[in-house]
Amino acid sequence: MNEQHRVVIIGGGFGGLSAAKKLKKAPVKVTLIDRRNFHLFQPLLYQVATGALSPADISSPLRGILKKAKNVQVLMAEVTDIDPTTHEVVMGENRIAYDSLIIATGVRHHYFGNDQWETYAPGLKTIEDATHIRQRILSAFERAELENDLQKRKALLTFVVVGAGPTGVELAGAISEIAHLTLKDNFRNINPADAQVLLVEGVDRVLPTYPDNLSAKALNTLQSHHIEVRTKTIVTDIQAGQVTLKQGDQSEIIEAETVLWAAGVLASPLGRLLAEKVGATLDRFGRVMVQADLTLPGHPEIFIIGDLAHFEQAGKLLPGVAQVAMQGGSYAAQVIQKRLQGELSEKPFHYSNFGNLATIGWSAAVADLPFRIRLWGFIGWLFWVFVHLMKMVEFENRVIIFVQWVFNYFTRNRSARLITNGFHTVYDTEKLNVEEKEQE
Amino acid sequence: MNEQHRVVIIGGGFGGLSAAKKLKKAPVKVTLIDRRNFHLFQPLLYQVATGALSPADISSPLRGILKKAKNVQVLMAEVTDIDPTTHEVVMGENRIAYDSLIIATGVRHHYFGNDQWETYAPGLKTIEDATHIRQRILSAFERAELENDLQKRKALLTFVVVGAGPTGVELAGAISEIAHLTLKDNFRNINPADAQVLLVEGVDRVLPTYPDNLSAKALNTLQSHHIEVRTKTIVTDIQAGQVTLKQGDQSEIIEAETVLWAAGVLASPLGRLLAEKVGATLDRFGRVMVQADLTLPGHPEIFIIGDLAHFEQAGKLLPGVAQVAMQGGSYAAQVIQKRLQGELSEKPFHYSNFGNLATIGWSAAVADLPFRIRLWGFIGWLFWVFVHLMKMVEFENRVIIFVQWVFNYFTRNRSARLITNGFHTVYDTEKLNVEEKEQE
Repeated sequence: MNEQHRVVIIGGGFGGLSAAKKLKKAPVKVTLIDRRNFHLFQPLLYQVATGALSPADISSPLRGILKKAKNVQVLMAEVTDIDPTTHEVVMGENRIAYDSLIIATGVRHHYFGNDQWETYAPGLKTIEDATHIRQRILSAFERAELENDLQKRKALLTFVVVGAGPTGVELAGAISEIAHLTLKDNFRNINPADAQVLLVEGVDRVLPTYPDNLSAKALNTLQSHHIEVRTKTIVTDIQAGQVTLKQGDQSEIIEAETVLWAAGVLASPLGRLLAEKVGATLDRFGRVMVQADLTLPGHPEIFIIGDLAHFEQAGKLLPGVAQVAMQGGSYAAQVIQKRLQGELSEKPFHYSNFGNLATIGWSAAVADLPFRIRLWGFIGWLFWVFVHLMKMVEFENRVIIFVQWVFNYFTRNRSARLITNGFHTVYDTEKLNVEEKEQE
Repeated sequence: MNEQHRVVIIGGGFGGLSAAKKLKKAPVKVTLIDRRNFHLFQPLLYQVATGALSPADISSPLRGILKKAKNVQVLMAEVTDIDPTTHEVVMGENRIAYDSLIIATGVRHHYFGNDQWETYAPGLKTIEDATHIRQRILSAFERAELENDLQKRKALLTFVVVGAGPTGVELAGAISEIAHLTLKDNFRNINPADAQVLLVEGVDRVLPTYPDNLSAKALNTLQSHHIEVRTKTIVTDIQAGQVTLKQGDQSEIIEAETVLWAAGVLASPLGRLLAEKVGATLDRFGRVMVQADLTLPGHPEIFIIGDLAHFEQAGKLLPGVAQVAMQGGSYAAQVIQKRLQGELSEKPFHYSNFGNLATIGWSAAVADLPFRIRLWGFIGWLFWVFVHLMKMVEFENRVIIFVQWVFNYFTRNRSARLITNGFHTVYDTEKLNVEEKEQE
């Protein structure tokens, strides 16, 4: 009986959520598994990392989004194994059977074999990454205010962003804005505008996946925002308080207390599990090679969508963006429904690119749209604001973000600039407690 | 010269901030020291703990609030010592000299000698406490959805709040609302409304500091919100998953995965430091006994204000509420200014009580106001909403909170119900990573 067809979706990001929504009226039983209880609107994560928005502003509880989809169950759990012979997904002691499986667990950041850099140069993928980066950036200014040694103070006010893709460009733009606008008049010993922001990119231009002329526009905007851009430059070492850059044969050590990593991604460990269990082929970033219908060879019941999938269209790898994941999720859901109706010949997946957008601080953005339409500067930014507000999952979040942005725009404020979960100062925070205990 | 008079304020809560603001036009140099970079609007902290608001909604960066007060410097640092002979405050390796010192470091929660209970029964004083409690409450429902053992499921859906003062009443009310309204239709295996909320109080009524008839109104409202209230009941033990209650001679063990502590406070460790360094007298909760002008005996230059101070008015100890702290800060600032003008005979501090308010879930509150005006129910709640919005420090926060509350009120939603910083399931989250490493 059709009603018993069980679809299990792993991952509640753009891909998994889009599949679940598409299936909500289908005669199937859906289980959506995620480690987190919320869907994250990742394109605005850099705004949390830079104190403009709160974590909850860009997150929606998965259960809330799907509460009216009575055939969908949400489980907050970590998938520990997949058994392709019994068709089961394993979550610790629990197991759940599937007839169709959609895997959409995405990617995390990656240090190209230099995992020890993570301690000094955090990347931005999760909400915790964002609040950690926020803490690092804000603490650097706080520590600089207390620092009397001028060289140490300079290192505290030097920010290096590695990687000039959209995330790197957005982070660098936001840090420059914090220094020049948000924190203006906030300090008495330092001038936050003395901060130096460096954006480092291995290839010869910023936003390398965008058309040449938009890269050039973006470079101009970055420079007018006081950001020093170093292209054709790679990072050869990162240690506490310093990063080593190499351009051609020239090496340079930069003293910087804050280094942020926006340079590389690696597929989620579920890719490795699939390679082991069903012989899936992985590319060098751990992404799973999929067929024209997004399934695994020999496993028409297993779909891989979103950032985790390696899918080429017209000879080009599809990028790891929300649109690709959402269209993939929707496509997989459709294929499953058609199969249940007896239609077995599927049209291959085709990605329709509706455009790419990246901001550089308040009031500037670049947009690469269909029909060779390209926007930049303030017009590009207004378009960016409109698209992002429209795409927000919950109507409520949209209103809150709009109010916050209007305030931020006119006041240059960032009200979510909290340093939480411990603070980074040069002081020994335990001292007083220790002394107290010694008295007892 | 008057302009050189140095005022150091320790603590950026209601007391310290109120003193700093009052001094912003005075001919003095002010340094405000806090461990955090923000002022916290503590009366709404329970709303963060229960997912209705985000941390940033009830926090304002201290530097932002004081940026126009050019004579005020904010330092984010931990005070490690006070030297009354050299008149210096020590922060690790840094020292700062004072002519007048205002100490407003407040209290933290306290387990009456049972510190081991803290692991199982967190208290609510900081932003991190609030996000931790939020994680505990929400994870309990998530784990219950995955739990097949009915007894364990019941323990996961049992919530015990210890202490029926304003915080305990507010927490219990909010948890009941999460179970009955917010999470309605969100689960497939459990019914969140099956959750049991217990409110435990040692004395014979809830809100013991309020007039009798308001306590009775509050009890009625709590019971109509499905909350089981146990008065004259004390906690004798707390362990993982269970709490032991004692009423008269009767002991009872309650299986509960979530126990929250709202029962006691202890003064900040700076009180002990003052006892040691300047011979200050402490009461049994570590609060510092102060003179009629809020100073220490023999040290007219040291003021203790807010929750840290033990001050009796008409034979009654002043309560640890925002109003007392703000009036204390303002008073200390005035005394300092008058002394600089040569006025040495001060009027003693006098607290004007403008009323006390406590909510019980959405749309019910009790208010104990001057002239024996007492409000309750929906009218009490409207008054509570009005007062709290007006009191919010930043205009922007006020608008955001208002929008959020309007949405929350009509949708019964709590959009900030994120589980962050690790999640509590029965599963071993490291498993997959471990397996991965073993393959390498």
